[in-house]
Amino acid sequence: MNFNEFKNKLIEIRRLQSAVALLNWDQQVYMPPEGVGERSRTIAALAGLIHQKFISKELESDLLILRKRQSRLTTKRKAVVREVWRDFSREKKLPQKFVEELARAASSGYSIWKEARKKSDFNLFVPQLKKIVNLKRKEAEYVGYKNSPYDALIDVYEPGVVSEEISAIFFELKSFLIPFIKKIKNSSVKIDPNCIMGNFDTKKQIDVFKSIIKKIGFDFEKGRLDETTHPFCTNFHPCDVRITTRFSKNDVMYCFSSVIHEMGHALYEQGILPENFGTPLGESVSLGIHESQSRLWEKIVGQSKHFWVYFYPLLKKNFQDPFVNVSLEEFYRIINLVKPSLIRTESDEVTYNLHIILRFEIEKELIEGSIDVADLPEIWNQKIEEYLGLKVKKDALGVLQDVHWSGGDFGYFPTYTLGNLYAAQFYAAAKNDIPGLEKKVSLGQFSPLLGWLRSKIHMHGKFYTAGDLVRNITGENLSTKYFVDYLAKKYKDIYKLKI
Amino acid sequence: MNFNEFKNKLIEIRRLQSAVALLNWDQQVYMPPEGVGERSRTIAALAGLIHQKFISKELESDLLILRKRQSRLTTKRKAVVREVWRDFSREKKLPQKFVEELARAASSGYSIWKEARKKSDFNLFVPQLKKIVNLKRKEAEYVGYKNSPYDALIDVYEPGVVSEEISAIFFELKSFLIPFIKKIKNSSVKIDPNCIMGNFDTKKQIDVFKSIIKKIGFDFEKGRLDETTHPFCTNFHPCDVRITTRFSKNDVMYCFSSVIHEMGHALYEQGILPENFGTPLGESVSLGIHESQSRLWEKIVGQSKHFWVYFYPLLKKNFQDPFVNVSLEEFYRIINLVKPSLIRTESDEVTYNLHIILRFEIEKELIEGSIDVADLPEIWNQKIEEYLGLKVKKDALGVLQDVHWSGGDFGYFPTYTLGNLYAAQFYAAAKNDIPGLEKKVSLGQFSPLLGWLRSKIHMHGKFYTAGDLVRNITGENLSTKYFVDYLAKKYKDIYKLKI
Repeated sequence: MNFNEFKNKLIEIRRLQSAVALLNWDQQVYMPPEGVGERSRTIAALAGLIHQKFISKELESDLLILRKRQSRLTTKRKAVVREVWRDFSREKKLPQKFVEELARAASSGYSIWKEARKKSDFNLFVPQLKKIVNLKRKEAEYVGYKNSPYDALIDVYEPGVVSEEISAIFFELKSFLIPFIKKIKNSSVKIDPNCIMGNFDTKKQIDVFKSIIKKIGFDFEKGRLDETTHPFCTNFHPCDVRITTRFSKNDVMYCFSSVIHEMGHALYEQGILPENFGTPLGESVSLGIHESQSRLWEKIVGQSKHFWVYFYPLLKKNFQDPFVNVSLEEFYRIINLVKPSLIRTESDEVTYNLHIILRFEIEKELIEGSIDVADLPEIWNQKIEEYLGLKVKKDALGVLQDVHWSGGDFGYFPTYTLGNLYAAQFYAAAKNDIPGLEKKVSLGQFSPLLGWLRSKIHMHGKFYTAGDLVRNITGENLSTKYFVDYLAKKYKDIYKLKI
Repeated sequence: MNFNEFKNKLIEIRRLQSAVALLNWDQQVYMPPEGVGERSRTIAALAGLIHQKFISKELESDLLILRKRQSRLTTKRKAVVREVWRDFSREKKLPQKFVEELARAASSGYSIWKEARKKSDFNLFVPQLKKIVNLKRKEAEYVGYKNSPYDALIDVYEPGVVSEEISAIFFELKSFLIPFIKKIKNSSVKIDPNCIMGNFDTKKQIDVFKSIIKKIGFDFEKGRLDETTHPFCTNFHPCDVRITTRFSKNDVMYCFSSVIHEMGHALYEQGILPENFGTPLGESVSLGIHESQSRLWEKIVGQSKHFWVYFYPLLKKNFQDPFVNVSLEEFYRIINLVKPSLIRTESDEVTYNLHIILRFEIEKELIEGSIDVADLPEIWNQKIEEYLGLKVKKDALGVLQDVHWSGGDFGYFPTYTLGNLYAAQFYAAAKNDIPGLEKKVSLGQFSPLLGWLRSKIHMHGKFYTAGDLVRNITGENLSTKYFVDYLAKKYKDIYKLKI
């Protein structure tokens, strides 16, 4: 067995995964309604095959041989073996029966959650959520951990990061955010988002936003943009990366923010080197790093003034009413309106992170067993009041709003805020490395920033861990400093705060 | 091993085939251009897996056990075993190396043919076509046959039908068609297709034609209609059957004829019983029977006067110019214009069959070795002149026009004309069984005919062979009589012929 034979086996598995990704994409974008039953069975059949191939004796023996030979491998190949072994040994530790039980629990969890949310009745969800939490705790036991069982779950999404680290970072961030949001609330600056509402043709919206992301660097020869209820990004290969969006007739920014967010994810995937396809070097580092790419483009760039210096004329030209009557200054303030919301997905970039911190704190204790599922609404509502000054009147607008837990996705939430922190820290480094970066953006020159992200992040795949990547690029560990500075500077100006 | 375990293995294979079908559909409908290289590798990987699973020792042992137990199986299960065994034993006879060689030859055959057609130079194609013909003759030797090696190739598309039968039928048909077409040519009736040309919005075209096929019975909850260069029908399950079409700005019937043709195929697939999915009882009988469904709807129904008695007002309403100035009578004559063409795919329902007969005659001799690849243009051009009175001036408009041979599809062509013959014979039986069928169609009542096709043909899958099916439904063997009668009656009227 030589390394290329091993690599070819990985590529074959990846191709099956791409087929699954297409089946999923199609299901959400074009599949006729009655196709759903058979589609999920087709996906399950392929997923079973992929699992079999991945934990096969053959791949195990290859891995054992390669691990013995490690000292003779190039650093890149070493990284491949390291990462495949990581996934392989995790999957090996989970008994087939357990995996199936969890899949079933997640699947009914989803339907029960949907029903409970519809009726806004958390009690309907309690027994199933208990079951899922117990299974996830069991998973942590199978996998093993050092300090907290929650760490074993985070590890899937953010490899190598543990809850202790996140706790410290989130505590710092929370200490900044809560008083900061109060200051914004008390600011004399009042922003009225209604002046950018209108009646926007959806076909025109998509044409305009397509032209924007094409200008930034999304390659439509290697990708598509379609419509779905829940926007997402998927990829089958660096040469076929697809994003989706949704529309509001009245609010052009509703569509734009998801287009540019998903574009951020897509630029990462289009920046993966094709020769690494199928290996960990052809995969993103972590969910947090992935999210850093979407948030960097969506928030730090896409809601900056210099970005709209370049693109606002295009918006005005295509949607005269209302934009001819709104100055760039006003527009900039409106798209950066800070307003605490009960709903995470409708939140601005400042308050959003308190939603994440709240979920992280609850998840951690749930998995560690120090709080009980039945007490969730009370805990949730208390925290929402403490962090955002809002009262939750319905569970549908509180603890029942997100799908994640119903599918057993514990450890996923923190990656959203980690993404914001990575993004700010990376962006600060980019500003250092690229003289006049923001001036360039205001002139419609995006390739310096995209090129920087490509060479620093995208092209390496999983060669570096998230921690190493951050240290390589920024010279220090992940910190809240850059994100806090970014928010403070930006919103001090918008809300005329005294800090 | 019980029968259901065996069935589940077939279903698992079918699910992988559905994934391949989606990969193909997507490639032709939505895939970004640069996705093509990886897409073909993904399809190849899955095709390899499917082949492995199908000719596995496991499936072989199941089949051997079930064949021993045959006398104790229900007739339906017997048919399943019979048909799976048919395919299995054929695939088993072909060495893996040969299959790969053929796939490679077909793949380069396609590119070379495309280039040759572009340059209209048959000589460029000769060496590769020779290679492909030799491989197909080798395939026939591997598979085995009784009289002609060509029979072993036809068998893939039209199981159980041999070239001797087809020769006899086609000879009869040709003897009718050649003088019939001359009579039409000499008719005093002249038809000008230009009066139905116009400038038609493609979005409106698709909306109108969608509403027509929905009315006929295409279920959009279980299917879709999209746009491609080459229209086709594909299915992943009876609940997800997709068709495609193409547009001409000037000619609304260009789009309509492919929509209703593909709808005919799709109604067959939507009429398959879901409980038979994955087994031969969930598959169409043959390409000829499949084509009978598309041609029955496209030509016999969709180009009949009673059909347009119902739908012409809709056309007039949506495309006033030019249709308000064209009477139903005139429209009916125009859409049934008979005009010999060098190009098969642009031919009317009368002359079309001579294109097929010509190809059949050539294929047969090629595979039997009685003519040589290098002589094809000469033979082709002679026959075209003899059958249609036309002169071929460029190979691109002659022997190079069709893709089939470049991919090794010998034995496919005759199924097109068999389809026309089946269609006419079935339709005659339907008229007998359903009193006032054509009156019903003129009132927009399509369910009697569709229900008849469902219960007589669609729901049985491969339970009957094509021959048995025809005898069951019509009480006799396939014959040219019904098709000849249909043409004679229809065109005698349109062209005021004396017969």
